[in-house]
Amino acid sequence: MTPTILSLPNLNQIATAHRLIQPYIHRTPILTCETLNRMVGAQLFFKCENLQKIGAFKIRGAMNTVLTLTEAEKQRGIGTHSSGNHAQAIAYAGQLQNIQAHIVMPNNSPQVKKDAVQNYGAKVYFCEPTFEARQAKMQEILQKTGAEFVHPYDDYRVITGQATCAKEIYEDLEDLDLLLVPIGGGGLLSGSALATQHFSPHTKVIGAEPALANDAYESLQTGIRHPPKPPVTIADGLRTSLGEKTFEIIRDHVSEIALASEENIIRAMRLIWERMKIIIEPSCAVPLATLLEGNVSNFKGKKIGIILTGGNVDLANLPWLSSLNQQ
Amino acid sequence: MTPTILSLPNLNQIATAHRLIQPYIHRTPILTCETLNRMVGAQLFFKCENLQKIGAFKIRGAMNTVLTLTEAEKQRGIGTHSSGNHAQAIAYAGQLQNIQAHIVMPNNSPQVKKDAVQNYGAKVYFCEPTFEARQAKMQEILQKTGAEFVHPYDDYRVITGQATCAKEIYEDLEDLDLLLVPIGGGGLLSGSALATQHFSPHTKVIGAEPALANDAYESLQTGIRHPPKPPVTIADGLRTSLGEKTFEIIRDHVSEIALASEENIIRAMRLIWERMKIIIEPSCAVPLATLLEGNVSNFKGKKIGIILTGGNVDLANLPWLSSLNQQ
Repeated sequence: MTPTILSLPNLNQIATAHRLIQPYIHRTPILTCETLNRMVGAQLFFKCENLQKIGAFKIRGAMNTVLTLTEAEKQRGIGTHSSGNHAQAIAYAGQLQNIQAHIVMPNNSPQVKKDAVQNYGAKVYFCEPTFEARQAKMQEILQKTGAEFVHPYDDYRVITGQATCAKEIYEDLEDLDLLLVPIGGGGLLSGSALATQHFSPHTKVIGAEPALANDAYESLQTGIRHPPKPPVTIADGLRTSLGEKTFEIIRDHVSEIALASEENIIRAMRLIWERMKIIIEPSCAVPLATLLEGNVSNFKGKKIGIILTGGNVDLANLPWLSSLNQQ
Repeated sequence: MTPTILSLPNLNQIATAHRLIQPYIHRTPILTCETLNRMVGAQLFFKCENLQKIGAFKIRGAMNTVLTLTEAEKQRGIGTHSSGNHAQAIAYAGQLQNIQAHIVMPNNSPQVKKDAVQNYGAKVYFCEPTFEARQAKMQEILQKTGAEFVHPYDDYRVITGQATCAKEIYEDLEDLDLLLVPIGGGGLLSGSALATQHFSPHTKVIGAEPALANDAYESLQTGIRHPPKPPVTIADGLRTSLGEKTFEIIRDHVSEIALASEENIIRAMRLIWERMKIIIEPSCAVPLATLLEGNVSNFKGKKIGIILTGGNVDLANLPWLSSLNQQ
């Protein structure tokens, strides 16, 4: 057993995180849909983190991190680089605890995302839209302010927070056979895998990934972390690649990564909107898409949990809109 | 006390209806949103009947009616005329209980609505899109089949079923000051008013109506039932006017009807989509719109329940889409 394994979030840490963050998050509902059950040939239970505060599960990890900072760390502030839900989560968690958040965003981020972060009282710094520019800018800010860096996923405080989502699922549903979780950087998937080990060890945890961003799939096949793919999948929340910590956890605790085509991701997204009447980001549709595509081992007739990760999507720019208008 | 009053659904009937229909409906979640609370200056609790079976509360009344038919009535079938959620509810309830449903629909109904009803195994009959043609066609079918007519709202079996929604709200929330319910034909509002009388008598029930379809408002002002207004409001579920039974209940048990402009209905609809990440029909947005407009008496700082009635909306035809695209 390596020292890294010893520092993995354990049952007590996940339970403590849940107790800490509970006053600040929604207990999100689990929804079902007969039509989708029939289409897939299994019983599906959708955990609606799209209905979570800031519209995504990311608030869990951000809140857990912020609530476990020392007083001195709180004084110095927190920082991250992100154009997505993690930026909003850190900004919102900072605002709630009166901690200054410093967010580095690519200068081509949508205005609505810039506004959201600024409205939560964060200081926003813009940089060129490259990974190197982000890192350089972040480094500069951290050195100047002494702020604590909070990685979007490769951070045990964040992973422990994300683990509370699966914990809630197992509190509500005792006999899930499978739990399907989208995989980008792997924070939610690795947290879910750890929670499952502790709270529902008979449940198999499966990552769901776009075929066009299959770096996690390849990483698990080869045993070596693969770099991110070109950012072409519509599931924009899943374009990042695994971190060191998330890779280790997923390698050891996730039984399989299932892939989905872009066509089925869009189809699944539209089905969830039309049939379940909820707004989800394209990334959330990937688990259902892998089932529609028949790419998950041995799922027929099973009880399957699916985490719907977020609902922050541009309502004017829906992928099926052009085809619908042609009808 | 008049004989009509004596036949109003009572506490036992509502509780029995709830017990009967529970196996066939979702216990829909109640969601909250801090941003909307701040904008309105009150605490809002949204009962999500858009996430109900068939995407609307109408399944409650339909299911209660179907489950209380005699065996002979079940043999002869059920019938209704509707192009909206009631048609789907009757078709679905019939399918579940193996009862033939006969649905008269205007021939200009959207294809998606015709398909939905037919997919539930109902026989669909098309007629010219006038009220007279609907009634004549319905009469013809009922005479031929002996089917039991189920009015969309002016039927105590239906009203009793709709009352179970407010009953669930009061089971989850004990101290609501106000309950806001959209008003079209008045089935949900009158059911909610009766449930409130029995399960939360300190709560004030308020109807929310588009200013362009203010027939219920005028009916309560004058004490005489007013006919429907021209069908111009975007809140298409609320274009019908009160029935005899619903009018009596609303007159006696609803404290106020609040009005909303089309502009605020569209604004409220977009806010609920963007902030709460759920899909609602325009009709659902009317209660929030009356609050945004400041048209409800004495609501600041109060705990307010709002029933979101349905989510069956054309995803390709959203009222804000053209303005968003111009941004």
